[in-house]
Amino acid sequence: MFDYRSLRVALLGAGTVGAQVARLLLEESDELANRIGARLELVGIAVRDVDAPRDVDLPRELFTTDAERLILGADIVVELMGGLEPARSLVLQAIGSGADVVTANKALLATHGVEIFDLAEQVGAQVAYEAAVAGAIPIIRPLSESLAGDRVERIVAILNGTTNFILDRMDSTGETLEESLAIATELGYAEADPTADIEGYDAAQKAALLASLAFHTTVPLDQVHREGITTVDAAQVDSAKKQGYVVKLVAVCERVPGEDGTERISVRTHPALIDGRHPLAAVHGANNAVFVEAAAAGQLMFYGAGAGGPQTASAVLGDLVAVARRHVVGGPGLVASDHAALPIVPIGDICTSSQITLEVADRAGVLAEIAGVFAANGVSVARLEQSTDPNTGRATLVIGTHAARERALADTVAALSQSSAVVAVASVLRVEGTK
Amino acid sequence: MFDYRSLRVALLGAGTVGAQVARLLLEESDELANRIGARLELVGIAVRDVDAPRDVDLPRELFTTDAERLILGADIVVELMGGLEPARSLVLQAIGSGADVVTANKALLATHGVEIFDLAEQVGAQVAYEAAVAGAIPIIRPLSESLAGDRVERIVAILNGTTNFILDRMDSTGETLEESLAIATELGYAEADPTADIEGYDAAQKAALLASLAFHTTVPLDQVHREGITTVDAAQVDSAKKQGYVVKLVAVCERVPGEDGTERISVRTHPALIDGRHPLAAVHGANNAVFVEAAAAGQLMFYGAGAGGPQTASAVLGDLVAVARRHVVGGPGLVASDHAALPIVPIGDICTSSQITLEVADRAGVLAEIAGVFAANGVSVARLEQSTDPNTGRATLVIGTHAARERALADTVAALSQSSAVVAVASVLRVEGTK
Repeated sequence: MFDYRSLRVALLGAGTVGAQVARLLLEESDELANRIGARLELVGIAVRDVDAPRDVDLPRELFTTDAERLILGADIVVELMGGLEPARSLVLQAIGSGADVVTANKALLATHGVEIFDLAEQVGAQVAYEAAVAGAIPIIRPLSESLAGDRVERIVAILNGTTNFILDRMDSTGETLEESLAIATELGYAEADPTADIEGYDAAQKAALLASLAFHTTVPLDQVHREGITTVDAAQVDSAKKQGYVVKLVAVCERVPGEDGTERISVRTHPALIDGRHPLAAVHGANNAVFVEAAAAGQLMFYGAGAGGPQTASAVLGDLVAVARRHVVGGPGLVASDHAALPIVPIGDICTSSQITLEVADRAGVLAEIAGVFAANGVSVARLEQSTDPNTGRATLVIGTHAARERALADTVAALSQSSAVVAVASVLRVEGTK
Repeated sequence: MFDYRSLRVALLGAGTVGAQVARLLLEESDELANRIGARLELVGIAVRDVDAPRDVDLPRELFTTDAERLILGADIVVELMGGLEPARSLVLQAIGSGADVVTANKALLATHGVEIFDLAEQVGAQVAYEAAVAGAIPIIRPLSESLAGDRVERIVAILNGTTNFILDRMDSTGETLEESLAIATELGYAEADPTADIEGYDAAQKAALLASLAFHTTVPLDQVHREGITTVDAAQVDSAKKQGYVVKLVAVCERVPGEDGTERISVRTHPALIDGRHPLAAVHGANNAVFVEAAAAGQLMFYGAGAGGPQTASAVLGDLVAVARRHVVGGPGLVASDHAALPIVPIGDICTSSQITLEVADRAGVLAEIAGVFAANGVSVARLEQSTDPNTGRATLVIGTHAARERALADTVAALSQSSAVVAVASVLRVEGTK
């Protein structure tokens, strides 16, 4: 194992996300070190109650209630406590002491972002917050880096999984808001007190962060027009559906040209009718999606899980790696690492499901002979459909296979084309996507 | 204007993408400087024929045929020539002379990537290639940075716009491959010689690059199983449709566990049946999409335009900004820039389209009175639908408005709720998404 230098990581909070981040840092330590060119050393986890039960078994010696002391000995501080205080004070302390900060705290940044970013800029610290918006979906980094050479015109986004789950359920079941909320709570998509989600506070905070990035303008939270979904009832959802719409809670961030040609922006979140054919209409359950329109890039969409312990932890880890790489001069960060050097399997050894369409002879015994070819080659048949074209009298057999080794499949197809039961092999297509 | 240091940018090639990159560098010079903390100075454009007609009017003095000399005087070299030579030699020369490289050349990297990345790692140069895969869609940076803390299990992607356009057209029109290809050529989605796209060479190169990144393993192009769409006919597309599938040319990059528990990978591109409900099935026209499954993040999808001058230029510019920011110590690159400081428009001044559902009185003159309220407030009605519930006798009016100032809309709704013609305002929903 190459002897990497260490970067000391302090974790504040060990809840749903924090526990997953700690787990990944410990379990994937070597792999992360290979990817970064330095080792991320988890030096401690600050919590309120050292003895509280955790989602993950973590070494007890890592836990402490002394967050301030922990921060002093850290190169990178990961803030996953949530809330405004003491998160704000601890984040400012971390930056002031020379540490970089990774956070998932949208409320903190939407409320105290200016103060935090200003201090970070003064001291040259990094503040990364991919996990604060849209869970696992990379959107902060794409907006601030990938689209940094472009001009973002408009963002329409579904940023709150709780409300999307509820509205999607209302749309598919005809339930009332209260009924769907009850299901959401039962399944863990809504918290005991769902106000922040239902009333649009969560979406508004995220909208403020996205708009600030997209338009290079600080967007104060109180200038974001906020509406939740409490006014949406089953009748509205039904009426929307009849007209080819779906009701979604969306965040809209857009440029609004002034009459005098000046540039202005609008940031708002509210329920809206979305055309059923729009990509955002296909965002189901608790998923999030960010639809971006940029001057050169055109229309882009980023889609995925908006929340969840492992999902949000993925975003935190991505930020940790990026932040850490900047401390490594000439490390693999600049050039993609190929350290894994995994063997590549030739196609013959790959297992795939396929659909084979055969034009078959019009006589008895055809099915048995064809089934025999599959059996002889060890390819299991999952579905079979026979049809005869009334005009031509031609008989077609469509066979769907279970996953089988490609080599066996190729042998099967070769044997079928030789078989007197088969007039022609019309098509062989692999089935992909659903696993 | 703040006095920024300059970074000298040399452009190799001024074709469809190159011309757009040059245009953006010149037109957006100040804005880019504000975002980077340094000025990108376009010092020259190397082409084969200085007098050839260009998509964009560019200053003649920028053009030169002496690429090697141009490279010597550059900090960042943007390679948009395409092809293997002289692109390879010039890129190696650029790196060797201490310049960073930004390229869109998938063929070059899929073929000579090892040599190029090795040299870059030795000298500490950056090589960025977001534009080489999936056009405007950020995928290289998300894979190499945002998901750098996660474990990518599988990628299923539509990476070639030409073939997706053709297959999508076959699906919606019932045309043959030849007919759809002819339309694609006519509309500029296919080149005069479409072999690279139709035969899957383009998709295979991109698959090799994505897999190399995702699995931290160099994937040689000759180990990518490649099939194009030449075997796909109208009958297969029709049969697929009847069974709820669509035929797509997909790139599949996945981990394949060995029987002994070893790690292996598979990289391939071929036509496949995709379930009609899968997000990839909703990728139409010449768009691309990359569907990623990662251990912690779960399922993510990145979607957008796969090609085009401005679209690919967006990716090039994003790379240029990222590469340039690394040269700026303590610049705005670390913290989001808020230099634009745009005014935020209050909701009352925003123009939106809305749908208003009214429960109306069951008497004559209702429609005229309600229409009068809209007219009095300057809100133009786009659609109107009246219906009566046979059970309750209740009359409902659903009105869709043209874009109107929110203040006028709010006044309209207030007046309606006061009107004797209206029993109740059942719903007011803004219509978003389609502009």
